[in-house]
Amino acid sequence: MQDAPAFTAVLFGLRGCLVQAATGIPLPAPGALDSLARLRERNVPCIWLDELSSAEGRQLSHVLPDWLPGHAASDCRWPAPDACWKALMTLESQRLDGCVLVSGEPRLLQSGLNAGLWTVGLATCSPTCDRTSSQWQAMSPQDQERARGKATLELFDLGAHSVIDHLESLDTCLADIALRRHKGEKP
Amino acid sequence: MQDAPAFTAVLFGLRGCLVQAATGIPLPAPGALDSLARLRERNVPCIWLDELSSAEGRQLSHVLPDWLPGHAASDCRWPAPDACWKALMTLESQRLDGCVLVSGEPRLLQSGLNAGLWTVGLATCSPTCDRTSSQWQAMSPQDQERARGKATLELFDLGAHSVIDHLESLDTCLADIALRRHKGEKP
Repeated sequence: MQDAPAFTAVLFGLRGCLVQAATGIPLPAPGALDSLARLRERNVPCIWLDELSSAEGRQLSHVLPDWLPGHAASDCRWPAPDACWKALMTLESQRLDGCVLVSGEPRLLQSGLNAGLWTVGLATCSPTCDRTSSQWQAMSPQDQERARGKATLELFDLGAHSVIDHLESLDTCLADIALRRHKGEKP
Repeated sequence: MQDAPAFTAVLFGLRGCLVQAATGIPLPAPGALDSLARLRERNVPCIWLDELSSAEGRQLSHVLPDWLPGHAASDCRWPAPDACWKALMTLESQRLDGCVLVSGEPRLLQSGLNAGLWTVGLATCSPTCDRTSSQWQAMSPQDQERARGKATLELFDLGAHSVIDHLESLDTCLADIALRRHKGEKP
């Protein structure tokens, strides 16, 4: 394997990662636009993917930058690896080495693991921390903190290579994965 | 990564691996039918792939067992990884882990490396040992031996995880890769 300091591609979940639609109106998740902008500055190809029809994908992704491609596929059933490989083919990625998936959805993270990708779990976007639920809103800050810890452990147990609270920590997380790759670790 | 003793899938090149067409008449390569039969006994899904039209693929592959699927794609340009991922999707492989590509064609082996597969090079099927060429036929046995050695080094230099002379050694080679996987090595 050649030494590859830069990332080949970063794949993002749409729901449960880049876009929040708690109120029914899609909004970029905190840190999403900054993360995408920084990756674009560094010429790292990015794409979103979701288990959606093209129309639903367009409707949710219109709050994201125009340059960002997407792969909406209602026929790719996670955790099969196909959705991730198809997204990489859409990006015309030349190799799997250095490709990363970011998501809070356990089934999509499992698809990324099955496809051979580095995976970054987003604890606060996982089903355990469904911030739109009345149950979550009724929790004390302490209980919410405990739920975040539980979600983190669940995503690590699944096999995620790294777990962060939210996209605002993605930059640091990618730097850490770059270091692990440099030391020869493989996903 | 879960412990995975068995192989998930084995991908074979068609030309330069499973089928020889030196005389214009396609014939199974020495060891090809035995290798396929042994993998089938062990329930390891297999598929051939080649940069060919469907008609050409059918014409060459009719000497292989009926149960063996193929992925002929004249639009998948090696060394891009797409052809390998598409073959895995044709097999409905559930994960990349434990998938192996076997071929003597350096561009296909590079495609397998780019796709994240274990790769087995076939030295005597590589372009350096073109047994159908008048140049090869004019060589002394000693020079042919030297050419085989050169081909082996070339395929290792490319990054192949293992290099064997021909398919008759595949069984031993897969046992060795199984051991390397068991020890935690990743492709």
